[in-house]
Amino acid sequence: MKRFALYAASAAIAFTSTAAQADEGMWTFDGFPTERMEETYGWAPDQAWLDRVQAAAVRLTGGCSASFVSGSGLILTNHHCIASCLFDNSSDTMDYLDAGFVAQNREEELKCPGQQAEVVTSIADVTEEVKTSFAGLDGEALTKARDAKIAELESAGCPDTDTTRCQVVTLFGGGQYKLYTYRKYSDIRLAWAPEDRASTFGGDPDNFNFPRYSLDASFLRAYENGQPVATPQHLQWNPRAPEEGEVTFVVGNPGSTSRLYTQSQLAFEREVRLPVTLTTLSELRGRLITAMDESPEKERQGLDTLNGVENGLKVYIGRTKALNDPDFTAQLAEAEAELRQRSAGNAEIGDPWSAVDEATAAYRALYLPYRFLSPSGDLFGYASTLVYAAQEREKPNGERLPGYTDSALPLTEKRLLDERPVYPWLDELMMGWSLSKAREYLGVDDADSRLLLGQESPEALAERLVEGTQLADPAVRKALWDGGLAAIEASDDPMIRYALRLADRQRALRDAVNESYSGPLAIAGGKLADARFAAYGDSLYPDATFTLRISYGQVKGWEERGQQVPILTTMGGTFERATGAPPFDVAEAFAANQADIDPDIAFDFVTTNDIIGGNSGSPVIDRAGTVIGAAFDGNIHSLGGNYGYDGTLNRTVAVSTDAVQEALETIYPAPALAEELAGE
Amino acid sequence: MKRFALYAASAAIAFTSTAAQADEGMWTFDGFPTERMEETYGWAPDQAWLDRVQAAAVRLTGGCSASFVSGSGLILTNHHCIASCLFDNSSDTMDYLDAGFVAQNREEELKCPGQQAEVVTSIADVTEEVKTSFAGLDGEALTKARDAKIAELESAGCPDTDTTRCQVVTLFGGGQYKLYTYRKYSDIRLAWAPEDRASTFGGDPDNFNFPRYSLDASFLRAYENGQPVATPQHLQWNPRAPEEGEVTFVVGNPGSTSRLYTQSQLAFEREVRLPVTLTTLSELRGRLITAMDESPEKERQGLDTLNGVENGLKVYIGRTKALNDPDFTAQLAEAEAELRQRSAGNAEIGDPWSAVDEATAAYRALYLPYRFLSPSGDLFGYASTLVYAAQEREKPNGERLPGYTDSALPLTEKRLLDERPVYPWLDELMMGWSLSKAREYLGVDDADSRLLLGQESPEALAERLVEGTQLADPAVRKALWDGGLAAIEASDDPMIRYALRLADRQRALRDAVNESYSGPLAIAGGKLADARFAAYGDSLYPDATFTLRISYGQVKGWEERGQQVPILTTMGGTFERATGAPPFDVAEAFAANQADIDPDIAFDFVTTNDIIGGNSGSPVIDRAGTVIGAAFDGNIHSLGGNYGYDGTLNRTVAVSTDAVQEALETIYPAPALAEELAGE
Repeated sequence: MKRFALYAASAAIAFTSTAAQADEGMWTFDGFPTERMEETYGWAPDQAWLDRVQAAAVRLTGGCSASFVSGSGLILTNHHCIASCLFDNSSDTMDYLDAGFVAQNREEELKCPGQQAEVVTSIADVTEEVKTSFAGLDGEALTKARDAKIAELESAGCPDTDTTRCQVVTLFGGGQYKLYTYRKYSDIRLAWAPEDRASTFGGDPDNFNFPRYSLDASFLRAYENGQPVATPQHLQWNPRAPEEGEVTFVVGNPGSTSRLYTQSQLAFEREVRLPVTLTTLSELRGRLITAMDESPEKERQGLDTLNGVENGLKVYIGRTKALNDPDFTAQLAEAEAELRQRSAGNAEIGDPWSAVDEATAAYRALYLPYRFLSPSGDLFGYASTLVYAAQEREKPNGERLPGYTDSALPLTEKRLLDERPVYPWLDELMMGWSLSKAREYLGVDDADSRLLLGQESPEALAERLVEGTQLADPAVRKALWDGGLAAIEASDDPMIRYALRLADRQRALRDAVNESYSGPLAIAGGKLADARFAAYGDSLYPDATFTLRISYGQVKGWEERGQQVPILTTMGGTFERATGAPPFDVAEAFAANQADIDPDIAFDFVTTNDIIGGNSGSPVIDRAGTVIGAAFDGNIHSLGGNYGYDGTLNRTVAVSTDAVQEALETIYPAPALAEELAGE
Repeated sequence: MKRFALYAASAAIAFTSTAAQADEGMWTFDGFPTERMEETYGWAPDQAWLDRVQAAAVRLTGGCSASFVSGSGLILTNHHCIASCLFDNSSDTMDYLDAGFVAQNREEELKCPGQQAEVVTSIADVTEEVKTSFAGLDGEALTKARDAKIAELESAGCPDTDTTRCQVVTLFGGGQYKLYTYRKYSDIRLAWAPEDRASTFGGDPDNFNFPRYSLDASFLRAYENGQPVATPQHLQWNPRAPEEGEVTFVVGNPGSTSRLYTQSQLAFEREVRLPVTLTTLSELRGRLITAMDESPEKERQGLDTLNGVENGLKVYIGRTKALNDPDFTAQLAEAEAELRQRSAGNAEIGDPWSAVDEATAAYRALYLPYRFLSPSGDLFGYASTLVYAAQEREKPNGERLPGYTDSALPLTEKRLLDERPVYPWLDELMMGWSLSKAREYLGVDDADSRLLLGQESPEALAERLVEGTQLADPAVRKALWDGGLAAIEASDDPMIRYALRLADRQRALRDAVNESYSGPLAIAGGKLADARFAAYGDSLYPDATFTLRISYGQVKGWEERGQQVPILTTMGGTFERATGAPPFDVAEAFAANQADIDPDIAFDFVTTNDIIGGNSGSPVIDRAGTVIGAAFDGNIHSLGGNYGYDGTLNRTVAVSTDAVQEALETIYPAPALAEELAGE
């Protein structure tokens, strides 16, 4: 039977005992629970320790976390976080993803398209200003006023958008609004990456499992003006094995959690979103697997997409299991009942649960068109961004959609214009698949189906658009971006015409969602947060939002079907687990250097830190503040962590610095990097 | 909001009022609810009417229903029920499925591999004998004793297995056991079939939808000793349009329903079986779609499999929606609560619900290995049948597994030995897919995964077995069948070796399922049936079991999003709906003969009859006992019919005899058939 504590309940427990769930929490840096950690571990970091770590913590806009580990802009992250960079730099004659990459000198380091590194420099509370902006409003009027205020705050906070980025973050579903300011680095290059198989040994079957034998690590470097940036505030590299029971911190950007969802939101997940997602994504997986089987080129070209699909699918399968586990969901229901009971009679809180019920019911009716009216595929994505950017830039900053405000445009533009390969067969497959699923779920005779397809079949439409568009060429995208609305409206590119055809309806659906769902939720979320603060005090952590968090915990195994799972694996274990059949074939350089690899070196290890997707690449930091690993996964139980943390079972999986050091010295030698890490 | 009545509740209502749900029920011929129908319609058929219809009703062992419609063995069924026959007779140079088939004379009629037609000749109650056989037993001991008694009854009932088949049917989950005797015809040939597109116009998008434009009809003929059989007891062909409100009967073999499931069984469906099924089947669908896109040959060779997968998927998606609909499930829960309350204090009934809970909990632990230890693919299926048959035939009849008793062996042998094409790429795809899903769900380190895969990858293993086996050759299968256990054990065919490697574990899992699930359910099912009879009287219908049932209802549309759906479509509507893009392109012969097709002829129509998969091909019969259509589908709401019938929304979709007559005369001319149907 699974056990876990909810956010709210655990907070309550934490103040009365050294609870089993003491390691739960993805804490903001301005809300670290010092007292709570001291009660559990007899020690907690001081403000100077936290400041040092925050200054070295990196967010990668590709969706990962990382850390500076040298004074010259060197960044430690996961291999799977930079796989797209290797992929984008590859061609049918040079497959960096398969072969790995070691820059012999800095000049060789490879630019990573679309990638940007960001370090938090300040956090300011803007709750009052944002809440005041929409006081007395509801629905779409509320979201418009709120978004305008957010755009204004972001724009005012970061006048220099070349080196800074400002972002207002909504915490506790609307309970708090914080302005995060980042120092940003938009020229990110790849310095070192092992072979893909060294990182993905065990492949999808071993993903989210442990024991594990994965060298899921790599090094990037931040550049500015063609030079590596100086990063005096970096973490100290500490190549050593983890010790059982030692305190660990994971510092990174958990992508999102849904631990504050009400019962009706959870029901929507279980009854609607997850079944649709499992079904459609599984079909995409099948389409990709067979298509990639057609040739080595397609195998290479599709791999990055397939990895993403399979990873996502495993996550959604895990969430489905969690929400179909009666013990798990009973605890979620109990926690809500307790909060309701503690809030009873508080007139200021009222009944936000019913408001969420109503909003969620309205969202159910909008969900399928809202989901399916945006076809998949890079080329459609380019077209859609170009169309929206052209339309939105015509408006004052405060009236634009969130992705197109002054503070958001630079990254949108970078992602659009950076050169990346496009594979037409893959774009056709993605687009054809998503259009056929749209027709399936909306129905043949639905007006949105007809808008999407006209008289064409999904496959024929995808083929016509992909084969006819010029948007694979960055110069074409640049000309359309620079040409603005006039260029877009004059374009006869079929993908642009198609994106234009959908845009009005997409906007109407977004407005409808804001009116009946997002607007009401902004109010209800604020009241639910107030209820929690009133019931459990203010030392709480908000749901994850892909912003900087710190989690504390310890190196610790768990019990699986009566067996104790050890805290770590060793590099020698790789060779014992190998069968020779993919994905259980050892990487070439591992096989070639087997005699020289110390079999006893710690490879991967587990900790009790509370993490989720987006935390990938986060440094695992010891009490001394040195980095001893890079988190790259959770165990299978952690997949339920989207809804609630179970300290007895949920584990972070990390690759040890010891293993990375061994790889730098013996398997994928990079003596200059090793010296740099040693601070020599 | 959906409304439906449960079996039990509706039975209760039916005796107190002319309830909205009056058309619910898949009734056995020995339990037709004459009084209930009279209350609703002021008329009900007499015994002679029922006897005539029963004598003409055909079960097709391929999984469909049908009826005799001439004195010379002519059988009406759906096109999709004989698609496999067209497919099996096709080659890369002659695609009967695509082109359709009209036999110019009887000599040209095409043999249908594996197909057998069966007509019920008697139904005998053997409840006492079966129940006595396992009195005092439980678990696997119970299922063994029961199965031995069933084998004995079947063997004694049908000494002549060339022309008869006996089958003991478990009704009400163990409340009743009935011995069905069939006249069987094992030489079934195809006389007439339209083009596939005429039947599948609208394809998967329109499947389970209405309005619909599908000529899903075809004609088979039963042979014996090389001659058409005489079938004086056939239905009268009546080519006419249906009339709104007229009484209709659907007579056929609904495959299975789960309307008597308890709450814990429903929870298992929703929480475990359906999510696993949706996910794995969707991936298979994707694999097939892309593989078939590689060449016209693969497009043809994979179509029959893909159609089956997509149909199944739509069914499971519909069931998932039903079990995720809180209104729907609340009514299921209420019905159970009511039955429990009515049964309270009845010592003979006791608490079978808790017994089902316990059995279902045990089944959860066995489900994944039990499901995944039988790889997919025709060739593995042949190997497995050969291995089991060889092992089982060594035992006395009463000790054999159900599929291998004296009464079951003839059909098993026919299916094994009939010549059918095998496409190695398709078998590899199916087997590789199922093995990779097994590893995914069981886990890499699971003992069953290791048994299935050894050190091989799923794809490599599938390739080795499919490429190495000789079982595609019916002569090889015949030799191994005739050679018995000695031949099997001496065989070095890799697929036979593989089937042998899995057989022991499969048997152990089956025993475990019998011990902790099937055995206890046989007892609990009997008690639950007793509880229902005690609470609601004995005029109840059992869950569907792919045995002969009769449903009454009427020609009637329904209301969809505020719009009234008409009762029928016309043939002219096809051309209006056509877009030219598959699957909305009209069949060639439709296009060629458009000028001659009467646009006002009734095409497809809907009735309130309560049906489910397996009913495909069932005659739709009017009050006079003449056939006016062939049921081929349900509407989208009918998919929840697995768990409960909603008379306001659930509809049967049928192709009218009027449309078939027009096709016989104008589109796919078959004057001899038209004459035969007219009784000339």
